[in-house]
Amino acid sequence: MQRTLISDTVNKINEKVTIHGWVHIVRNHGKITFLDLRDRTGLLQIVTNQVVDLKPEDVISVTGKVVTRPEKLINPRIVSGTVELQAKEITILAQADTLPFDMNKEVLDVTLPTLLDYRTLTLRHPHVNKIFRVQEAVMEGFRQAAQKLGCVEIFTPTISASATEGGAEVFKVKYYDHEAFMIQSPQLYKQMMVPVFERVYLTSHAYRAEPSVTSRHLSESIQLDCELAFVDFPELLDAVEFVGSETVNYVAKTYGDILKEYNIEAPHIPAKIPRITMREAQKIILERTGVDHTQELDLMPEDEREICKWGLEKHDSDFITITHYPTKKRSFYTMPDPANPEYSLSYDFLFRGVEILSGSQRINKHDELVSAIKDRGMNPANFKMYLQAFEYGMPPEGGFSFGLERLTMLLLGLSNVREASLFPRDMERVDFRFSDTKIKN
Amino acid sequence: MQRTLISDTVNKINEKVTIHGWVHIVRNHGKITFLDLRDRTGLLQIVTNQVVDLKPEDVISVTGKVVTRPEKLINPRIVSGTVELQAKEITILAQADTLPFDMNKEVLDVTLPTLLDYRTLTLRHPHVNKIFRVQEAVMEGFRQAAQKLGCVEIFTPTISASATEGGAEVFKVKYYDHEAFMIQSPQLYKQMMVPVFERVYLTSHAYRAEPSVTSRHLSESIQLDCELAFVDFPELLDAVEFVGSETVNYVAKTYGDILKEYNIEAPHIPAKIPRITMREAQKIILERTGVDHTQELDLMPEDEREICKWGLEKHDSDFITITHYPTKKRSFYTMPDPANPEYSLSYDFLFRGVEILSGSQRINKHDELVSAIKDRGMNPANFKMYLQAFEYGMPPEGGFSFGLERLTMLLLGLSNVREASLFPRDMERVDFRFSDTKIKN
Repeated sequence: MQRTLISDTVNKINEKVTIHGWVHIVRNHGKITFLDLRDRTGLLQIVTNQVVDLKPEDVISVTGKVVTRPEKLINPRIVSGTVELQAKEITILAQADTLPFDMNKEVLDVTLPTLLDYRTLTLRHPHVNKIFRVQEAVMEGFRQAAQKLGCVEIFTPTISASATEGGAEVFKVKYYDHEAFMIQSPQLYKQMMVPVFERVYLTSHAYRAEPSVTSRHLSESIQLDCELAFVDFPELLDAVEFVGSETVNYVAKTYGDILKEYNIEAPHIPAKIPRITMREAQKIILERTGVDHTQELDLMPEDEREICKWGLEKHDSDFITITHYPTKKRSFYTMPDPANPEYSLSYDFLFRGVEILSGSQRINKHDELVSAIKDRGMNPANFKMYLQAFEYGMPPEGGFSFGLERLTMLLLGLSNVREASLFPRDMERVDFRFSDTKIKN
Repeated sequence: MQRTLISDTVNKINEKVTIHGWVHIVRNHGKITFLDLRDRTGLLQIVTNQVVDLKPEDVISVTGKVVTRPEKLINPRIVSGTVELQAKEITILAQADTLPFDMNKEVLDVTLPTLLDYRTLTLRHPHVNKIFRVQEAVMEGFRQAAQKLGCVEIFTPTISASATEGGAEVFKVKYYDHEAFMIQSPQLYKQMMVPVFERVYLTSHAYRAEPSVTSRHLSESIQLDCELAFVDFPELLDAVEFVGSETVNYVAKTYGDILKEYNIEAPHIPAKIPRITMREAQKIILERTGVDHTQELDLMPEDEREICKWGLEKHDSDFITITHYPTKKRSFYTMPDPANPEYSLSYDFLFRGVEILSGSQRINKHDELVSAIKDRGMNPANFKMYLQAFEYGMPPEGGFSFGLERLTMLLLGLSNVREASLFPRDMERVDFRFSDTKIKN
């Protein structure tokens, strides 16, 4: 018999249907048993007077009649709360082991290590897997915004012959008889595609051998990138703010219900997002708090929080664009401001106290770029294919990127970025903890 | 002045406009110079009586008046062939080195190694970069088809604690103090997500340390995957054929002009795609050609070509679904046919003589899966997180995957899969050839 999805049962009252799903909970009342069955559309109460030997997470197929529940037994919290299924036939499709913890709570009450040790199980919990519906919407919102800007989607490699941006935090791969590296970011490849399509976007994995375990870093993460030719700095900022706010707005429109479930307010997106320089931000913070960070070369985390408070109070905006970070604090390809080369045509885009998106106008002249590489103590020979793109005519250009997991975390107010990655990789874990002998066989 | 795109010049006759782009060719006629300028929308002829020192690929900005060309000078081959721009002011935005080869041919006439050694340059050629418009459309067509099936997009890792499917063709990564592997496919992760969302799709990089250089294999490639719960074998074949044909059809509809430029006929997609078993295919081939491959355990490449000829002749179809490959020729997670376990509930989906998509019904019972792993001489302890998903109730399920570069290659009739990868990785090359001392500094 054709399967009926649980959300469709309310339209099939007094009809015979077949439902497939997972046993969510079993309530045995002696001669009668109630089951909650879960499929991708929601929960349904099943009533049976058969003797059933069912456990949570068993996969079953149930055929029976959909009936309306008496008014006082309606459950407004579930999609099919006005009906139940009187089971005629129950078939077990796959049995589950006894669960290591109770899955039948509205919010799963386990520690982060347990959440990850039993990842294939904990992700089944509706409150947990909604995180990844939001993540999917972040991706879709980003794609739509990038396409509206006229960007072409490109597919770039992750194995590289040299470290993208120098530094020690890079994973080495044994590549046949050679040593290669996992990219730290797709930055160089997207720039190389600017003379091909002018405007490009991509989603790429990025790998960072972070030497410590923090709540904000992953060893493997997903990065969303745009790069645009023939833009000046103000046009670039327009593009940044467009993509950043469109993406967040798409999520809020699509999954307002999930944000609500996570106690998150709808984002405040003004028509004009406030734009200030880093130095201006530091002055505002000094005036507001008396804390003098005006000599610092970057915004501290508490500065980012404070300036976002200001943005919300003064401009009713959850977003703020901070420009002109010191040149030496940014990557080598960042264009110094011609008016004052100590500062750069760079920006961070902040959302509710944290940077979600970062980028810059790029150096587009070959010789200046070679000098910038040398100034950072790196060898231009390691950037040959990249520099080739600049040898043959690179237009003025700029771009930006953001992290899929970090934005997901911020949108839902999660406390650890690992909660926003299906299978997070860090120093201690690849699926299982390296140290955990309990889990290891 | 606001930039005008070249394709818009035909709507701005007798107006003053500013155009940005790359010098495609310079034709110096003494007192008058003709330039073809290229931007992302096409080519435009520029006329100037200034003394200009411009070379191909120089990036310039030109301000001038758009005028209609005399009838006999109309160029029907370019988007703005009815107009030209009388230049008033030319600004050089970035200069290009002398090109290593002539870029001004309709089809770029270079060898494959040169095509790849100068990748940032050769990709600028319009005939070359159209390959990647088709590739973008493959991805978009796939996503739309997967979404129509109700699949949720998921994001899975590429660093893994063990080799996905065994074998030696795996890249090792130094992961902090441990050894890890780049995934050979996202197969195991997508299956682990079936009990979470029932229907999922993903796009992932896949890594194979192919020990030889062939025209069909890349060391790093992009794989498009679907996995569906609660489907039986015929429903799974319906899904395969839907996604495969919808994807190809999307490309054909979107880029019919590019297929034409590549001399590729529009695909023949019948309402019902022919479905036969591998053994039936071998019998048909024997009848048609006299070649007896009926004892072979797989279709040979010439068999795939022959059975596709049959499909086109008998069913007016460029597609054919071949089912029931021998169980021992398929991966461990493939479900044997209960009616005859020597053969499996597996399939290849062929397009114009080549397999583009492959998959199977999966084993969904935990203990059977453990046995299948052991039968292949592998250690179930290496599949712990994967097996955890089956310990807690895995429904009947199946899925499929295809390769982005291979399908792009087939759609355009390219002779080497490297032409369908922006920056192909193989045994000899990561951007530059390891052996090439000419290129190396």
